[in-house]
Amino acid sequence: MNEYFLECVGCGRDYPIGMVNTRCACDEPLEVKFNLGSVPCNWFQSQRSGFFAGRYAPFFPYLDPDPLFSLGEGQTSLLRSVSLVEKLGLKELLFKNETQNPTWTFKDRGTACSVQNAIALGYRRFGTLSSGNMGASVAAYGSRAGMDTFIMLKDNVPREKIDALTIYGAKAFQVYGDYGELYARLLEIGNHHQIYFSLSDDPLRIEGYKSLAFELLEQMDGQLPDLLAVPLGSGGLCRGILKGFEELRDSGITSNVPIFIGIQAAGNSPTVDAFEKGADHIECFQNSSTLDHVLENPYPPSGNQVLRKLKASNGLLLKVNNENILTAMQLLSQEGIFAQPASATALAGLIEAVDKKMIPRGSRVVVVVTGSGLKYPPVLKEFDVSPVSVKLDQLPQALEAVLG
Amino acid sequence: MNEYFLECVGCGRDYPIGMVNTRCACDEPLEVKFNLGSVPCNWFQSQRSGFFAGRYAPFFPYLDPDPLFSLGEGQTSLLRSVSLVEKLGLKELLFKNETQNPTWTFKDRGTACSVQNAIALGYRRFGTLSSGNMGASVAAYGSRAGMDTFIMLKDNVPREKIDALTIYGAKAFQVYGDYGELYARLLEIGNHHQIYFSLSDDPLRIEGYKSLAFELLEQMDGQLPDLLAVPLGSGGLCRGILKGFEELRDSGITSNVPIFIGIQAAGNSPTVDAFEKGADHIECFQNSSTLDHVLENPYPPSGNQVLRKLKASNGLLLKVNNENILTAMQLLSQEGIFAQPASATALAGLIEAVDKKMIPRGSRVVVVVTGSGLKYPPVLKEFDVSPVSVKLDQLPQALEAVLG
Repeated sequence: MNEYFLECVGCGRDYPIGMVNTRCACDEPLEVKFNLGSVPCNWFQSQRSGFFAGRYAPFFPYLDPDPLFSLGEGQTSLLRSVSLVEKLGLKELLFKNETQNPTWTFKDRGTACSVQNAIALGYRRFGTLSSGNMGASVAAYGSRAGMDTFIMLKDNVPREKIDALTIYGAKAFQVYGDYGELYARLLEIGNHHQIYFSLSDDPLRIEGYKSLAFELLEQMDGQLPDLLAVPLGSGGLCRGILKGFEELRDSGITSNVPIFIGIQAAGNSPTVDAFEKGADHIECFQNSSTLDHVLENPYPPSGNQVLRKLKASNGLLLKVNNENILTAMQLLSQEGIFAQPASATALAGLIEAVDKKMIPRGSRVVVVVTGSGLKYPPVLKEFDVSPVSVKLDQLPQALEAVLG
Repeated sequence: MNEYFLECVGCGRDYPIGMVNTRCACDEPLEVKFNLGSVPCNWFQSQRSGFFAGRYAPFFPYLDPDPLFSLGEGQTSLLRSVSLVEKLGLKELLFKNETQNPTWTFKDRGTACSVQNAIALGYRRFGTLSSGNMGASVAAYGSRAGMDTFIMLKDNVPREKIDALTIYGAKAFQVYGDYGELYARLLEIGNHHQIYFSLSDDPLRIEGYKSLAFELLEQMDGQLPDLLAVPLGSGGLCRGILKGFEELRDSGITSNVPIFIGIQAAGNSPTVDAFEKGADHIECFQNSSTLDHVLENPYPPSGNQVLRKLKASNGLLLKVNNENILTAMQLLSQEGIFAQPASATALAGLIEAVDKKMIPRGSRVVVVVTGSGLKYPPVLKEFDVSPVSVKLDQLPQALEAVLG
């Protein structure tokens, strides 16, 4: 029989599984624990009706999901690099294309789990705190589940991002004030008003991200990659994928876990800075500024846990500048994937790690491409590629000029 | 042994399979014909490595595809309506969510086939004529295949749409002049400069759209829907899905074909207008204007064929106004799907058909949601939903006010 509970990732204290809007008294996030036992996994392809309802169910024993409230998250493509793999001297370079999720970012994997938990616990109100992507995801799932949905946004989230989430019917609040303080206040407000806030470190959200590890193992025919490069915002995605790989190992399906490379933009690098200083705890980053605001949380709620986990597992932590992020966006596009800058950050970090000979030549690497470039197209102005403007009868000459 | 060739959908004249940039001498599009024979179909889920390389291969006998040049198109979700199905008095209402494709529209299914054909024929140059979506798709696949890529755009395509395709490295041309004439000129230019123009009625593009029919049959456990609602732009998608269902029937896998409902925006309805007049041929629409420019081709290259096919199969053709399209966008969002207006057109048409009692109560209906709402967010201004702007210390009161 399975027993499941929440455990603090910092001090190890236990909490009951039904608790929401809660961090530990020591101010660290909680995560789901359960007795894995032997997992009767059938490694066939699942239907697109929610990954946790199919063959991955043994890894989500605390859920009794209703497939109606899935939006077909997960089961995204794993694309082989055509040209970059050779340039970087890697044995394999694969892109996990999370832009194919229902709201076009990886957030949907987490939201899909959170919303099932919210429904099971009887919540009628759902919400989050977001720089845009998580807001859209929570708005979509909340709306589908018929819940009243509340999205809290930082004051600098651009209007086009807000419009692209209120369309789902959510109520958006643009809040002026300290982001870290807002986070803490939402836990109280959520408990007071019976709102399930699926924040970046909601234990059930982290659980959803595990599915990315399971899919990777299948898509690589049971082989693990040597390295996995992932952008670090709040740290939730990194935690979730790593938890997934650890559970695969602990259930005897694999014997190892890939090395993680966590990458932040230099414009907001609290976790990387703590790592470089050899510190145990992150400090709040001052004057954060990133290209698409997605990796801009100055005090990531899962920062300490990422630090602990990556240190303990020989992981790498790197930061990259805007120029390198924009170059990585172009390189990804040449492979056919238009990613938002926050997502291209992972590839930029990998390139830097290769340049600095921090990773062995001949490695097999997976880069997680977290969100669609359509999430914030104003960034494209940085490239300034104008179309050729021409009258129809002059098109042949204009084309001739380009073809040379 | 299979023999395959191109056949004019109008006069029936044959052409060799290797011809590109070609319409029939009678100015109708060509389509691929081959001897289906008995199809050894294994109805298991394919890997995401190009639908034509997996279990659907028997329906693409003329292709020897290289999976490296797939972007993981197809295998999109089929979502069950949560609330609308009951309101409309339908037995089943399902949304085929094509926004999960690699460039976030159905176009990728067609481009994936075209690019394989272009590679097999030795082309090094790839291109299209587009109002944005097809351009992005062709740019992505062309870039991945290492081809020089040329995208011709109408003069009114907004800059943000152009930026979102030049990022792939394609050369964009904004062409001032008649769209129909431009289309014809591109066929000449393509042949002259050895550019494979994958236009809306490229026979191989139509072939790619067939895959949507195959997936639907699988996702509905071998049952056909009664009705299929699809937006009509150039008409290529409608032709392709119908051809897929016809081939399923002709190969003995099914015994029937669903009824198609083709829907256009009232701001550009050449095919619907011809249908309503009982005409055999479409006429060029004057002063086209639609919400996101996607359904704005005034003289759709596959218009006559759609007219013929839908007449012959008891199909319906409807047009809907902007107000109803925007309402449909909101209704879709409540189901968790943020679609662009052109895509919501299909649902708007279905609602009108239900209101006018044109379809039987208790029908099982699939609505094809063709593209992501992120493709052209400026349309969201039509909804004018402002966020609540508030200081952190006043958030509890602001929330209280909303909760009542």
